[in-house]
Amino acid sequence: MANDKKMVSAITDMEKDFPQWYTDVVKKAELADYSSVKGCMIIQPYGYAIWELLKNQLDEKFKETGHENVYMPLFIPETLLQKEKDHVEGFAPEVAWVTQGGNNKLQERLVVRPTSETLFCDHYKNIIHSYRDLPKLYNQWCNVVRWEKTTRPFLRTTEFLWQEGHTAHATAEESYEETIRMLNVYADFCQDILAIPVIKGEKTEKERFAGAKNTYTIESLMHDGKALQSGTSHNFDDIFSKAFEIQYTDKDNKLQYVHQTSWGTTTRLVGAVIMVHGDNNGLVLPPKIAPVQVIVVPVNMQKEGVIEKATEITERLKKVVRVKNDFSDKSPGWKFSEYEMKGVPVRLEIGPKDIEKGQCVLVRRDNNEKIFVSLDNLEETILKLLDDVQLNIYNKALENRERRTSVAKNMDEFSNILDTNQGFIKAMWCGEKECEDKIKELTAATSRCIPFEQEELSDNCVCCGKKAKHMVIWGRAY
Amino acid sequence: MANDKKMVSAITDMEKDFPQWYTDVVKKAELADYSSVKGCMIIQPYGYAIWELLKNQLDEKFKETGHENVYMPLFIPETLLQKEKDHVEGFAPEVAWVTQGGNNKLQERLVVRPTSETLFCDHYKNIIHSYRDLPKLYNQWCNVVRWEKTTRPFLRTTEFLWQEGHTAHATAEESYEETIRMLNVYADFCQDILAIPVIKGEKTEKERFAGAKNTYTIESLMHDGKALQSGTSHNFDDIFSKAFEIQYTDKDNKLQYVHQTSWGTTTRLVGAVIMVHGDNNGLVLPPKIAPVQVIVVPVNMQKEGVIEKATEITERLKKVVRVKNDFSDKSPGWKFSEYEMKGVPVRLEIGPKDIEKGQCVLVRRDNNEKIFVSLDNLEETILKLLDDVQLNIYNKALENRERRTSVAKNMDEFSNILDTNQGFIKAMWCGEKECEDKIKELTAATSRCIPFEQEELSDNCVCCGKKAKHMVIWGRAY
Repeated sequence: MANDKKMVSAITDMEKDFPQWYTDVVKKAELADYSSVKGCMIIQPYGYAIWELLKNQLDEKFKETGHENVYMPLFIPETLLQKEKDHVEGFAPEVAWVTQGGNNKLQERLVVRPTSETLFCDHYKNIIHSYRDLPKLYNQWCNVVRWEKTTRPFLRTTEFLWQEGHTAHATAEESYEETIRMLNVYADFCQDILAIPVIKGEKTEKERFAGAKNTYTIESLMHDGKALQSGTSHNFDDIFSKAFEIQYTDKDNKLQYVHQTSWGTTTRLVGAVIMVHGDNNGLVLPPKIAPVQVIVVPVNMQKEGVIEKATEITERLKKVVRVKNDFSDKSPGWKFSEYEMKGVPVRLEIGPKDIEKGQCVLVRRDNNEKIFVSLDNLEETILKLLDDVQLNIYNKALENRERRTSVAKNMDEFSNILDTNQGFIKAMWCGEKECEDKIKELTAATSRCIPFEQEELSDNCVCCGKKAKHMVIWGRAY
Repeated sequence: MANDKKMVSAITDMEKDFPQWYTDVVKKAELADYSSVKGCMIIQPYGYAIWELLKNQLDEKFKETGHENVYMPLFIPETLLQKEKDHVEGFAPEVAWVTQGGNNKLQERLVVRPTSETLFCDHYKNIIHSYRDLPKLYNQWCNVVRWEKTTRPFLRTTEFLWQEGHTAHATAEESYEETIRMLNVYADFCQDILAIPVIKGEKTEKERFAGAKNTYTIESLMHDGKALQSGTSHNFDDIFSKAFEIQYTDKDNKLQYVHQTSWGTTTRLVGAVIMVHGDNNGLVLPPKIAPVQVIVVPVNMQKEGVIEKATEITERLKKVVRVKNDFSDKSPGWKFSEYEMKGVPVRLEIGPKDIEKGQCVLVRRDNNEKIFVSLDNLEETILKLLDDVQLNIYNKALENRERRTSVAKNMDEFSNILDTNQGFIKAMWCGEKECEDKIKELTAATSRCIPFEQEELSDNCVCCGKKAKHMVIWGRAY
């Protein structure tokens, strides 16, 4: 069997070379491929199926919280991008420029959207007139482009897929509430659906979104102890509405500026799933976003009745889970490796002896546990098992994060931790950009967030020793 | 009530000025808005909800026929686009060019994809090696850009949303079968879901997709008698695989070229729905893609128990249909107009007298029929009514098409028909491009397709009088 050479042995040990392990998994689980276009990836069927499941479940949460989907243009005229000063300064260095349409040079250059605040503002200015028009709770699923220097599939690509929510409200209170509401939607989604624990907090001024009043973030920790910003929610207050003159008439017939938010998550969440849950046998998928939750593999399938029974079981299970079977002529061993690589949460094996006993074998991807179960109530057994897997991989991820979370009271401790137990570092901070810069220079760690759950570790900034204002979570990040 | 000025009176009579009527409906039903970006539209929540319902149902059909979704890059390097000669000639004059990334001029210009044949070919070359890798049945949902001179929301925009299927097969037979299979998927979808009857046929060489061996099409007729190409399916045979050298080893260990197809439908289908079913009160939506299938409007809602009953009915109906209620302080008359404009298939009115009698009023959008029905079995009544509406608007559209389909045996008849009863014209054709060009020049009508269902109207070409080869459907098109 020619395909047997695809066996698992070829993948790099994650403890030896995590970046190479990541690339191997992306490639061998057939999640994404490189393209002829620098920095752009091809999302292959299996990777895209994960993204679709993720997207559909997140979209449901948006709709439950009253949001509506829209679609804005791909292009932004240069003058429109320039309307908000900080925003254009933040994005102009990393955008793609369209300068020619058909055979003609354009009179005004167009930016391929890196994000769409300016387009939403332009539209809101046209459609918001009265307090009756508020709030506007819009979201869009689309592609965006940022001209990145170094790229890696899912984690950082020149083009990526994302959703961007853009809302407009009557008051500052409402825009603040919305910002936090959506941060919580993201946090719950990561925890409940992706089985990834996150820390919620505010970004420092240095790390804030270009043009925002406040940026909030959810931060997660990868298996190797590096941090990943997994979703952000920005409160613009009236900064953009003043630049774009988006005003409404309130109940007292007075003109007021609207208050806005935006929030986004991207295909990088697929990267997070790989790096949080994966192991040396490949991908480990949370059942809730696994395109195949159960793979049925017949053993001794040439024996009479085996394929029939495996088919019957597949049909039964189709009603309650995403299930597939593999009756190809490859060996069971090859199939076991293949579906382990692809992170299928549960493997169901069935052979002549099992059929005789009215049972089958279930093997969990997350801990390799093998159990023999009765074919009666198989649906219930499997649904319960999938819940267990979902919970267990969340707990494992949480354990890893806790094991890799340390406290540093001075810069020696700070550096030492990064050398010995890379992960999140809790340390006090005076609030000055100078210290933030210095820490980055010395350790390559950045402030991930000022977490909502503050602790008083000491009175002094870990860097300058002056009076501390906040506890900050630090880490080296993707 | 300030909003009362939005009443229906403002919309243009469709029989007097159909293009203006179309624009009015798009605007007043809040389907799309113009943007600051020339030729690009903003799809508003209601328009996008229609697109989502359409997309989800079409995507289901693709998956049922074994197709998988993927995502390819937005950009195509210039050299890649140039690999297939006819293809680049067809598309180069109408593409947007990215020439700068960040602060640097690009060494090679990038095209914003107008379609993705070249990207799929490039990928297929990398992943197809053996007959075991075939067929590849891929599809993607994405945005594409074509630098159009004149644009109109949904029908023709510089950027539009679409799906593009791209498949690779072992043999010419298989790629031909796939091309026809997907044309049939489109035709059934238009008829069953969008309630739009279509004619299936092949495009003439002149109207063929750039680089295809054969192009097949579904053609529909709008209310005003103009044609709309509503979906196309292309058989490439081995034209692209030779240009891109996509080869596989067959069972006899011989190298063979793959055989390919592509097929696409776009947001223009939303335009078709507007123009086929709409009337002078606005949009008329087929229930299967109506974001709101039933709108509950209370009458005398200040009276005790009315809102409660209307709420109770809404909750009951939520289990079986997409239903909303409107308890705003606007007048029932305003609400009636508003939901007529938005094409909601069924309006449910309920007032104190109805409650007394245990009934409610149902008003159909398609024919304005008003019926009093018992609140018992309301779910069944409404489901049946929605089926009736779906069927009735299909029949109306078919009737319009039949009334507007004529036979022409010479060019005088041809021109006369277009002046008096614009629509589809069936006429014989010799097969020469000269006649096709001449007909277009004389009448502004183009060959829509050589329909699969041929009739022998006469032996002679409608234009030159020489021996006819095919019956062709002609029409002026959007």
